[in-house]
Amino acid sequence: MVLCDIGNTSAHFLDNGRSWKISTSEFNPENYKEKIYFISVNRKISEQIQESKLKNWIDLSQFVKIESEYKTLGIDRKVAILNLENAIVIDAGSAVTIDIVKKSRHIGGYILAGRLAIQKSYEIQTPHLKFRQNDKRLDLNELPNNTENAIFYGYLHQIISLIKEIKSNFKDLNLIITGGDGKLISEYFPESEFREFLIFDNLREIIKDNFREKN
Amino acid sequence: MVLCDIGNTSAHFLDNGRSWKISTSEFNPENYKEKIYFISVNRKISEQIQESKLKNWIDLSQFVKIESEYKTLGIDRKVAILNLENAIVIDAGSAVTIDIVKKSRHIGGYILAGRLAIQKSYEIQTPHLKFRQNDKRLDLNELPNNTENAIFYGYLHQIISLIKEIKSNFKDLNLIITGGDGKLISEYFPESEFREFLIFDNLREIIKDNFREKN
Repeated sequence: MVLCDIGNTSAHFLDNGRSWKISTSEFNPENYKEKIYFISVNRKISEQIQESKLKNWIDLSQFVKIESEYKTLGIDRKVAILNLENAIVIDAGSAVTIDIVKKSRHIGGYILAGRLAIQKSYEIQTPHLKFRQNDKRLDLNELPNNTENAIFYGYLHQIISLIKEIKSNFKDLNLIITGGDGKLISEYFPESEFREFLIFDNLREIIKDNFREKN
Repeated sequence: MVLCDIGNTSAHFLDNGRSWKISTSEFNPENYKEKIYFISVNRKISEQIQESKLKNWIDLSQFVKIESEYKTLGIDRKVAILNLENAIVIDAGSAVTIDIVKKSRHIGGYILAGRLAIQKSYEIQTPHLKFRQNDKRLDLNELPNNTENAIFYGYLHQIISLIKEIKSNFKDLNLIITGGDGKLISEYFPESEFREFLIFDNLREIIKDNFREKN
């Protein structure tokens, strides 16, 4: 069973435990012939799948029901919080989303620019300021003392600080972290649960509930 | 007396209490004939002033001495913390810099992407996600419940959270805020001091100490 999570910058696949990403600029859904269960926040690609009537692409979004006031909540964020009762869910990808679920209800959330977005923004606007990760992990109690650390830990520390603040406002909620930069962020929260394949795990649940498929 | 603070995205002038900004893409130092005291973090413009031997542009950076391990600290950040003994200084411009001064020594700092940088990054990478400020000021205890607030308060709240955390680690330090978005940020810190013209005030101090000029 092939699963695909189509984002703004890349399409993320999972097939029998093997996962890979393809940049959306190089990704063409018409090149695939097998059955693929997918979600997409990428309007262009969603439209292409619909307009080209690609029957092998099966959109799972219709099966996802979330209680929330937040009308425009992206389908990836809905899937990430699926079936959770009390949790703060961080998905640290090309955007970093933070969603708060209390008593099985989504009560709000944030969208932050992700690492690649910030990196590109430095490249375009202030190319002499290099955004790159220092090999040595900085203790967040240490203050950055050079430009490279000031930029990288500026980016990282503000995300960590916001999560800490939300966590202190919602002490009973579990912290669940996923996404490409999720591992790095989770290291600063020993109590957190890092779920590399949270989205795919939940897509599999949806399929189990709605299709006759071997998982 | 004309003062000028040349940044990466704009040159900021002050002349007899009147201040204005010119985008660096439209700014040409050769167009000015009067004497202008300046600092610049913009390498291209600094080189132009030097190579074209523009004698009316007087670089004040040589007069700025700051105790710090941070060798590449930008001249604007050095000027912002000039003569301070114990302070956290935020300059919220096209980048947001945070600098910590303790016992008259700069002990570290952060560089965060500023509002315009984030805004441009959304425009380029995810144009359907609009970055704009909601007219109604959100209480930071409220959780954003739509995409516009999730993006704008995601940007703002993570800066506020980081500053709060630094402030709680350095309780004795005064919080001094400047820069185009400084007023907005200072509203979340009632104990802070908002100094719209901090850089220019300090440039004036440097001139007083080193030149025979009427202030």
